[in-house]
Amino acid sequence: MPDAAVLSRAQCAARDAHDPLFGLRAQFHLPEGVIYLDGNSLGPLPRATPARLAQVLNAEWGEGLIRSWNSAGWIDLSARVGAKISTLIGAAPDEVLVADTTSINLFKVLAAALDLQARTRPERTVLVSERHNFPTDLYMAQGLAQLLNGPGETSGYELVLVDDDAGLRQALADGPALVFLTHVDYRTGRIHDMADVTRRVHAAGALMIWDLAHSAGAVPLALSQAGADFAVGCGYKYLNGGPGAPAFVYVARRHQDAAHQPLSGWLGHAAPFAFEPNYRPAPGIMRFQCGTPSIVALSALECGVDSLLAALPLGGMEALREKSVALGELFIALVEDQVGPDVLALASPRAGDARGSQVSFAAGAALGNGYALMQALIDAGVIGDFRAPNILRFGFCPLYVRYVDVWDAAAAIAQLISERTWDQPRFQQQATVT
Amino acid sequence: MPDAAVLSRAQCAARDAHDPLFGLRAQFHLPEGVIYLDGNSLGPLPRATPARLAQVLNAEWGEGLIRSWNSAGWIDLSARVGAKISTLIGAAPDEVLVADTTSINLFKVLAAALDLQARTRPERTVLVSERHNFPTDLYMAQGLAQLLNGPGETSGYELVLVDDDAGLRQALADGPALVFLTHVDYRTGRIHDMADVTRRVHAAGALMIWDLAHSAGAVPLALSQAGADFAVGCGYKYLNGGPGAPAFVYVARRHQDAAHQPLSGWLGHAAPFAFEPNYRPAPGIMRFQCGTPSIVALSALECGVDSLLAALPLGGMEALREKSVALGELFIALVEDQVGPDVLALASPRAGDARGSQVSFAAGAALGNGYALMQALIDAGVIGDFRAPNILRFGFCPLYVRYVDVWDAAAAIAQLISERTWDQPRFQQQATVT
Repeated sequence: MPDAAVLSRAQCAARDAHDPLFGLRAQFHLPEGVIYLDGNSLGPLPRATPARLAQVLNAEWGEGLIRSWNSAGWIDLSARVGAKISTLIGAAPDEVLVADTTSINLFKVLAAALDLQARTRPERTVLVSERHNFPTDLYMAQGLAQLLNGPGETSGYELVLVDDDAGLRQALADGPALVFLTHVDYRTGRIHDMADVTRRVHAAGALMIWDLAHSAGAVPLALSQAGADFAVGCGYKYLNGGPGAPAFVYVARRHQDAAHQPLSGWLGHAAPFAFEPNYRPAPGIMRFQCGTPSIVALSALECGVDSLLAALPLGGMEALREKSVALGELFIALVEDQVGPDVLALASPRAGDARGSQVSFAAGAALGNGYALMQALIDAGVIGDFRAPNILRFGFCPLYVRYVDVWDAAAAIAQLISERTWDQPRFQQQATVT
Repeated sequence: MPDAAVLSRAQCAARDAHDPLFGLRAQFHLPEGVIYLDGNSLGPLPRATPARLAQVLNAEWGEGLIRSWNSAGWIDLSARVGAKISTLIGAAPDEVLVADTTSINLFKVLAAALDLQARTRPERTVLVSERHNFPTDLYMAQGLAQLLNGPGETSGYELVLVDDDAGLRQALADGPALVFLTHVDYRTGRIHDMADVTRRVHAAGALMIWDLAHSAGAVPLALSQAGADFAVGCGYKYLNGGPGAPAFVYVARRHQDAAHQPLSGWLGHAAPFAFEPNYRPAPGIMRFQCGTPSIVALSALECGVDSLLAALPLGGMEALREKSVALGELFIALVEDQVGPDVLALASPRAGDARGSQVSFAAGAALGNGYALMQALIDAGVIGDFRAPNILRFGFCPLYVRYVDVWDAAAAIAQLISERTWDQPRFQQQATVT
């Protein structure tokens, strides 16, 4: 049975009317006739972004040209946006930097963590993660391990994948070098207890790396308090930084001056403009910078982060989280009220505090793998996404999703299923990107 | 003695009036009262860019949202812009990809080249470059070599730096794994003979990697014809892609399916949306993709590349090159006519065909290190840049620099020196970025 009451559309409208966060929605451009439940894949366009980018292009680049590296503060932009993000993830301003992509940043912190371990516990060469982690995280770890092992001989670096908490317990008992987990699962939305897992990993003598792709801007985070060693996160989901926005990297202050990362580009050098032939890492977080960052992309990300910072006077991440859980619970209640579990079975944890800002349903056999239903839904103006093998995923970003949107989305799903509207060839064709 | 004639300003104006490339200048926004001779550091804003980015923001992101990965072709953008760049560097369209930064791409190709060698010639563990190569290239190689060697033991990977061609000859005799060179030197503009060096490197059993940061869009290139193995290049200099624009990577087709690069992110996977736990590299150049690229930054780069493609009907890179050499020779003649070599000594090769699209002068002792003179020049509206220890660098991009600009720049230099205008405290303060 669902935890939340099934509301009528009028009751949903009343909730919106009394929602203290409702005004935050006006920060975004949202297309007419679209209910957007895919902010967990790509956040929508903040209205401030086009004007800000026009200023960056015309005034800073066009008029300022190369001088803007100093006069417009471009050289500090990565650290400045990183400091803003730090307030959303429970870290200090000098522990977070915007740079490169989530994948690249994960490579940096995995390599840095292995290097830290190699200096004190050289026998520790195992990297532990979950088999159902987002694949790019596993791929980057595989790339690093293969590189370290070399083609001929093996240095024994090995990626061990676990399926559940029992598996993690066993892997920890074997004394790994590090554990890297995605805090909120991309498919199911299941959320890890960051403090508890970090404590257990540390107790086993390993280092803990968190991927916050589906957490930053979605759930309250306390990286420092949890004692996390390293973290990475994504700029284009809940941070609303635009398609392919730059990512961020967190390094606990206690590790910063000992940590070495191998993507040692010139902007991570202690004196980039001295043009010395030998690398000397910059102090602090700046050594996790590599090449020259895109100022246009960074400026768009800053607008996206600002759209979250606007919630701070309204209760901040805690208030956002409360609304997001309420939206998710309502969605579960409405869908389950109208559609049987043989058609759509809840794939996310039912308890709100065990789930991120998304709700996923697994398609029953009657729906095929569910891909066509999602395409039909998108065609009907309700945008969620499909994740292989059979997951329909809906994100409830409280910055802009209304209670009536949840009601309308559930109604659209019920209607498509009852009318079998989705069962048309045009909805079966797999797009390149799902 | 200078090779080119000293022209009067009226003669320069006449040259502009008859320049078949003159119309290309109208593609750019150039500030009033500024002579921009720093396109080798940051190309100017193409007039097409703000409108194109407004479309990407408002229509593709704002209205299309996540759907634009398919409907607006975002997923193919890295390859599409790469294919456009291929026509500027003498490569096939499927040999070039836009991705990440120059530094990151260099790491990928260095690692891929070492891996290729390790499989057939495991005794080859030396990477050769020039001591005066752009530092980030050396730093990335140092980071890779340290990573491969590990903290405890050594696998023998070593970076050997040479000072000149005699040094290169000696290093080649020792049988290195690879050589990586920047084709046009960032300080002096000295240009390597790509075909000859590549041939000699191959004859020594090594692989050849070119950094085209100061070449792509500046000089005609024939990567395929030269037999280059790998190359990387920069999007924000002569390609006019904007501050920190994405970079490109070239992999000769013969290596593509054997090459493995360790930054194995999900968009380099053979089936990114199958979400498989194990990495399988995509066929061809796509395996050099890593994480999700910034669509805004890529779209700006495409506008910049288009500003060069507009020169194709007017004689292409060869015509651009001819004008750039003429501009450089005129600048050398005018400066040397007015300023003695004890004050400004030519630091670039005098022969036009041995020099890229820039001219550098070394500051004589009377100027201190020359930094203050460059600041005074910038203050007077002539923008070049300073490179430690004592280099004043001027770029002559034929897309938008006029003959009268060269005359005016040389006159401004002569005046500042004769009046010692530069010798003021406000011009001595070192900016963060030089």
